[in-house]
Amino acid sequence: MISFAINKAFFLHALNATKRAISTKNAIPILSTIKIEVATSGITLTGSNGQISIEHFISVENDNAGLLITSSGAILLEAGFFINIVSSLPDVTLDFKEMANYQVQITSGKSEITLKGKDVEQYPRLQEVDTNNPLSMETKTLKQVITETSFAASTQESRPILTGVHIMLKDNQVFKAVATDSHRMSQRQLNLEKKSADFDVVIPSRSLREFSAVFTDDIENVEIFFSSSQILFRSENISFYTRLLEGAYPDTDRLLTPNFETEVVFKTANLRQAMERAFLVSNATQNGTVKLEITGNAVSAHVNSPEVGKVNEELDVEELSGSDLTISFNPTYLIEALKALKSETVRVRFLSPVRPFTLTPGDDSENFIQLITPVRTN
Amino acid sequence: MISFAINKAFFLHALNATKRAISTKNAIPILSTIKIEVATSGITLTGSNGQISIEHFISVENDNAGLLITSSGAILLEAGFFINIVSSLPDVTLDFKEMANYQVQITSGKSEITLKGKDVEQYPRLQEVDTNNPLSMETKTLKQVITETSFAASTQESRPILTGVHIMLKDNQVFKAVATDSHRMSQRQLNLEKKSADFDVVIPSRSLREFSAVFTDDIENVEIFFSSSQILFRSENISFYTRLLEGAYPDTDRLLTPNFETEVVFKTANLRQAMERAFLVSNATQNGTVKLEITGNAVSAHVNSPEVGKVNEELDVEELSGSDLTISFNPTYLIEALKALKSETVRVRFLSPVRPFTLTPGDDSENFIQLITPVRTN
Repeated sequence: MISFAINKAFFLHALNATKRAISTKNAIPILSTIKIEVATSGITLTGSNGQISIEHFISVENDNAGLLITSSGAILLEAGFFINIVSSLPDVTLDFKEMANYQVQITSGKSEITLKGKDVEQYPRLQEVDTNNPLSMETKTLKQVITETSFAASTQESRPILTGVHIMLKDNQVFKAVATDSHRMSQRQLNLEKKSADFDVVIPSRSLREFSAVFTDDIENVEIFFSSSQILFRSENISFYTRLLEGAYPDTDRLLTPNFETEVVFKTANLRQAMERAFLVSNATQNGTVKLEITGNAVSAHVNSPEVGKVNEELDVEELSGSDLTISFNPTYLIEALKALKSETVRVRFLSPVRPFTLTPGDDSENFIQLITPVRTN
Repeated sequence: MISFAINKAFFLHALNATKRAISTKNAIPILSTIKIEVATSGITLTGSNGQISIEHFISVENDNAGLLITSSGAILLEAGFFINIVSSLPDVTLDFKEMANYQVQITSGKSEITLKGKDVEQYPRLQEVDTNNPLSMETKTLKQVITETSFAASTQESRPILTGVHIMLKDNQVFKAVATDSHRMSQRQLNLEKKSADFDVVIPSRSLREFSAVFTDDIENVEIFFSSSQILFRSENISFYTRLLEGAYPDTDRLLTPNFETEVVFKTANLRQAMERAFLVSNATQNGTVKLEITGNAVSAHVNSPEVGKVNEELDVEELSGSDLTISFNPTYLIEALKALKSETVRVRFLSPVRPFTLTPGDDSENFIQLITPVRTN
C-alpha cells in the first residue's frame, strides 16, 4: 500500500507533463486515468492515449522533489480530477497514502481529501521498445527539425501516410526529415556528429508536436530507440513513446530538381506580411489565390476577390535575376513556409508558372528546402 | 466622398473598441458592419448588436490620431474584415479614400487594398437619449460596483428581469446596485458627492460587463443619461448605449434582516481556497453541497461525493461568536461571492441552517452585503 510525501509544485509539474498524453474523450475509458507506480527508487507516472504514451520518473535522489517513500505499490487515479485536487492543496507538501479498496488519502496542511482509485491491473500494457544502440541528438536540434517540417504534413485522413513526417538516417550520418501534403513539401537534412545505424520511419506529425511540448528546453539531449511499430524518445526522467505509421512513404526526392529560370531573394518578414494581407482578401473566395508578377526588376502581388475587394502591392526585393514570370498560388502555403524559416532572407526559385517553386533560407541553400505547388489560372 | 489619412495604431484601437458592440452572428446582417462617419471635426465609428451600441469619436484635434480629413461622408464596412485589413497594413499611417459605388481604397506604404462597402442609409437608427442633467461618476467607482454585483445576476432567461442589475438613486444621493438569481444576492450602496435626480432602472448584466471592458481605466469620469428604454454612458470620446430591461424588479430589501445567531470572521483567501477544494469534489455529484460545521471555537468543512471521494478540512478563523450551527450550501456561490470581495477578511453571519447567511467585508459592514441561500439536507 503506497505511502509517500512529496513537494506539491514538483509533483504537479510532473503530473501535468504526463497528462499531455491523456485525452479526456478516449474510446478506452481506463486511459483517462494516470498510473502511479511507487518503488524504493522513486515514482513513475504513466499516461497514454493509445497513440502516444509518456512515462515520467521522479527520483528519490532529486532534491527538488522532496520525495520520501515509506511504502511502495501502484494505483490508477482519474488524471484530470486528481491533478485539480493536487493543484488546490493548501501546503507546500502533500502526503499520499493508499487505504483499503483502492482509496487514496491526500493530506496537506489541515486539508484531508479521500479519492477513489482503480486496480492497476486494469491498465493496458504499453508496447516495449528495445533500449539498445540509441541515436542521440540535442533536443533543441530535433525540435527545430520538427518545427521546420511537421506543419507541411497532411491533416486529412484520406492518405494516412501523409499525416506523418518521414524521418531517416542514411549513410550512418545523414539525418533527413520530410513532410508533404501533396500541395507543399518541407525537407530538412543535417549531418550527425556521431555515426549511428540507418533507419527509415514515418512518425505521426501530431505525436512529434506533442513531443516538442513535453521535451522542454531544459532537457539537453534525447536518446531515440526504435521497434518495428514504435519509437521511444527518452531523457533522464521522461520516456515518450509513439506509434509509427505503416506503409510506404512516397518518393519525394524526384520532386527536387536543381533547374530554375527565375530567382528572387526577399526579406522573410516583408514577404510574409504581404502574403498575410493577400490572404485576408483571397480567403473570401473559395480556393482564392494570389498572383505574383515578376517583370523586369520589380515583383508585385495581386488578389482579386470579386465579392469583397482587391489587393495590389509592390514587393521589396533584395536580389532578382532570370526571366519574367507570372505565377498563382494559395498564399497560406507561402505564409506557413515563411513561418518555418528562421533566416532573415529567403531565396525563391521558379521554373515555370505550372511547376512547383522552392524556398531556401537566404544563408543556407542545401540543408533546408521547401516546395510549393502553384495553381493554374486562366 | 470620404478622404482622410490617420495613424494606423490609433485607428485600430478605436475600431477594436467599437467592435465590442458588434456580434458576428447577428440576426440583422447589416449589424455586422461598422459605420464610419467623417465630418470636418473628426470621425465617428459606430457598432451595435441591437442591444448595445458604441459610438467612438476621433477628433482632428487629437495629436495622437494624426488625423487629416480632406473630404467628409459616411459608409458601412464589414467590421471584422475591415479591422483585419487595417491591422495588416505595412506603414504607420494609412490613407482612406471612398471611390465610386461604395468602394473604399486603403493605401499604406506600397500596399493598396480596395474593399466593397455599403450605403450608410441601410444602417438602422439607434435610439436617442436626451443628454441633459447627467449623473456624473468616477469610472473606477462604477466599474467596481459592477464587479461587485453583476456576477450575482441570473444567466437564465426564465425570469428575464433577474438577468439585470437593479440600479437606483434614492434621496438624490444614495446610489444602490442589487443583483440576484434567487439563490444569492449582492448589494452595493454608496453616497454620491453631488446630488442628482432620483432614478430606478434594470440594466442587463451582460451590457454592464461590456461597459466595463470598453471604458478602460484611463477614462476618469463617466456621465450617465437615461431615457425610458435606454441608458447612455458617455466619456469624452465614447458613447455606450444599452437597452434597459422592462418589468418590476423584486423587492430585495425584505431579504436583509439585522438578526443573526452566529458570526465568524475568516481570511478571505483562506476561505476561498478551502471552498475551491470542496467544489472540486462536490462538483462530481449533481447539486453537490459543502457542509460547514461550527462547534465550540472550531469551523470545519465537509464534502462527501460517494462516486469520487471526500473532503474534510479544518478552517482557520479570525473571530468566532454565537451558537453552534451546521449548514449546507453550494460552494460555487460562496467562491463567487468571495471573488467579488476586495477586503482581506470577510464577516459571515448565520441565523439558522435554513435561512440565508450574509457576507460583508471585514472592514465595512454597511455598504456591501451579499446573501447566500443554504440547501436543506437531511
